[in-house]
Amino acid sequence: MRQSELFTKTRRENPQDEVAKNAQLLVRAGFIHKELAGVYSYLPLGLKTLNKIIGIIREEMLALGGQEVFLTSLQEPEKWQKSGRWSDEVVDIWFKTKLGNETELGLANTHEEALASLMKEQISSYKDLPKYVFQFQTKFRNEKRAKSGLLRTREFIMKDLYSFSKTEEELANFYDHAAQAYEKIFKRVGLGEVTYKTFASGGSFSQFSHEFQTLCEAGEDLIYVDEGKGVAVNKEVLTDEVLSQLNLDKDNLKEKKAIEVGNIFKLGTKYSEALGLNYKNESGEVLPVVMGSYGIGPGRLLGTMAEVLSDDKGLVWPEAVSPFQVHLISLGQSEAVKAEADKIYADLVKKGEEVLYDDRDLAAGEKFADADLIGLPKRIVVSEKTLASGKLEVKDRASGETIYIDHV
Amino acid sequence: MRQSELFTKTRRENPQDEVAKNAQLLVRAGFIHKELAGVYSYLPLGLKTLNKIIGIIREEMLALGGQEVFLTSLQEPEKWQKSGRWSDEVVDIWFKTKLGNETELGLANTHEEALASLMKEQISSYKDLPKYVFQFQTKFRNEKRAKSGLLRTREFIMKDLYSFSKTEEELANFYDHAAQAYEKIFKRVGLGEVTYKTFASGGSFSQFSHEFQTLCEAGEDLIYVDEGKGVAVNKEVLTDEVLSQLNLDKDNLKEKKAIEVGNIFKLGTKYSEALGLNYKNESGEVLPVVMGSYGIGPGRLLGTMAEVLSDDKGLVWPEAVSPFQVHLISLGQSEAVKAEADKIYADLVKKGEEVLYDDRDLAAGEKFADADLIGLPKRIVVSEKTLASGKLEVKDRASGETIYIDHV
Repeated sequence: MRQSELFTKTRRENPQDEVAKNAQLLVRAGFIHKELAGVYSYLPLGLKTLNKIIGIIREEMLALGGQEVFLTSLQEPEKWQKSGRWSDEVVDIWFKTKLGNETELGLANTHEEALASLMKEQISSYKDLPKYVFQFQTKFRNEKRAKSGLLRTREFIMKDLYSFSKTEEELANFYDHAAQAYEKIFKRVGLGEVTYKTFASGGSFSQFSHEFQTLCEAGEDLIYVDEGKGVAVNKEVLTDEVLSQLNLDKDNLKEKKAIEVGNIFKLGTKYSEALGLNYKNESGEVLPVVMGSYGIGPGRLLGTMAEVLSDDKGLVWPEAVSPFQVHLISLGQSEAVKAEADKIYADLVKKGEEVLYDDRDLAAGEKFADADLIGLPKRIVVSEKTLASGKLEVKDRASGETIYIDHV
Repeated sequence: MRQSELFTKTRRENPQDEVAKNAQLLVRAGFIHKELAGVYSYLPLGLKTLNKIIGIIREEMLALGGQEVFLTSLQEPEKWQKSGRWSDEVVDIWFKTKLGNETELGLANTHEEALASLMKEQISSYKDLPKYVFQFQTKFRNEKRAKSGLLRTREFIMKDLYSFSKTEEELANFYDHAAQAYEKIFKRVGLGEVTYKTFASGGSFSQFSHEFQTLCEAGEDLIYVDEGKGVAVNKEVLTDEVLSQLNLDKDNLKEKKAIEVGNIFKLGTKYSEALGLNYKNESGEVLPVVMGSYGIGPGRLLGTMAEVLSDDKGLVWPEAVSPFQVHLISLGQSEAVKAEADKIYADLVKKGEEVLYDDRDLAAGEKFADADLIGLPKRIVVSEKTLASGKLEVKDRASGETIYIDHV
């Protein structure tokens, strides 16, 4: 795409109403727009990045055997009353609204109730199990505080997968596969080395659940990391008993700030019992389905990448999620440079490269500052100098290294 | 995909709480699930179909020069107060909610205000125009009645594009291109022959807006069609003056029921003036940006296709939007049939065909009834009979014609 046609502009100054680095950078680079506190629109560069993250997560969910659906935000109270989660005293982040006839509705902040209820029409026998169902769908959460940019928002797309199994063993087996898929996702988006599978409390059904925590000074969570073993524990389970159970030594744990980028949870039969989601086993016994839930917020992940992978000049996207792979920059307005840059642009596009072509009539310094801020992996410069040399300057955004290659 | 793994099941009986044919068929075939009146979840087959429709619309919007964004549902009152659309007396389909601190918010039913406001940060000069911005995003509309299945819903994904132009001429030029893109979309999804560009009232800025109306007995609108000229008019503009202006003869018009599947509207400077979206022209004058809006509901389009293209046996999907292209059906449980069907499935998938493989242990009649209900374009049957003949039976869902081909 030609940057002269892109409707978003970069900004030099940080927006005054943002304190979080991720929001400052993403707003300045034209990736997102703040609608109100904790509510952000995605602009073309941000949406492309978000969709790449979603694409990676989707691939891994399909590889797990997941089937994709798209549930609704509007929810009637009944199902949530059955599970005990309708009351604002129990769940203090509801957004509620009303139909014209004054019937109260809620905007879903999660979908265990809705999906367990839907699955009652689809599951009756052991032959129908196991099943794995996921979606990318907007969640609404009425957060009291929303000052962390994309790290804690009131409206956000979430990938939530729910597993439906016959037995605890079947759940445990899938749960382990899901954990592996999550590790793969964080690796693929470039956060593998700083993201720890973290033991957290498991609720009434299981001793542990797991969070995936990315080390980051901007994180709201504190975790205790054994770097050698690549494992961490959450504060709520940091007891001598748990440590000995996990074969961890207190002296090897370092307290770190982290962002929760994913979580997986064995729900057991809590929601299936509340909502009557049962199946008949091979002996004809009626038993509650055993459930698990598995969440990742692609927007929070994008915000985390903006926090963790950026430098003082701007964003630094890994290839896998970058909105474009190459930032092609023409310097000066000579016809020869324009013609050569146009040609390289056409050639790269023809090869299937995703190119942002800065064809704007601006000074070199402004173009370089914009390129650093937007943070595409490779920068190619076409100028009188490169024309004369017959070489192209290719700079790697992450390492800062420049190499010279023959004209493409 | 193997149908034995698909988590949705078909139903023989119409759901008791649905009166609209589209909802009856789509629920029975396992494409959608009713959450509450006018609020439907998409199940795997439905979501695949919806995503194909979205893919076609996206291609045409990108071809028009559109840039994709993703705006938010949560909205503060201020912008809408400026345009006069916050009050429930003016707009009677608001869903409203509240932040924890009692600040009232609305759930966007459209996005003129939000986008015009956002564009103030991006547009300042004539050099920034024209720009075309679109999204696929969930709209919330508090409809009083919601008995028409997917044709009128309270929560639905909408493609809304907004154009930002310097002058009325520039708007008119793009508006005509957009109208052509819309005609292309309806053609591509298989509704071209029954969809009419329909003159409707244009509001304060323009004499006409245009609707795209698909002829259908289930439609809520009445239009007056000149079949020969391929044009229609809406009741509200059916006057002698308009007819003579459009060179239409009252005697050639037939009254028809129709579903509004799209609309395009010249907004003029209504929202840009209300929200202060201005640009400087070449002489340095500050002028309001001239806007247009262009909407299609992919879900309503899907519902319309279920109404218009179905028959008494079930759904009939055109290739362009069908969730799978081929329904491969094995009959009987002989090992030879299974092995041959497995092989054909593997071969077709390898070729890149989208195949739903009915490998379930069910009677032929049930499998055929399900295939007719689900409505994939091609049905291939593998049975003892086809094995013996060395031929495969390929049936076209739309025409009902069967041909025999050599084994693939």
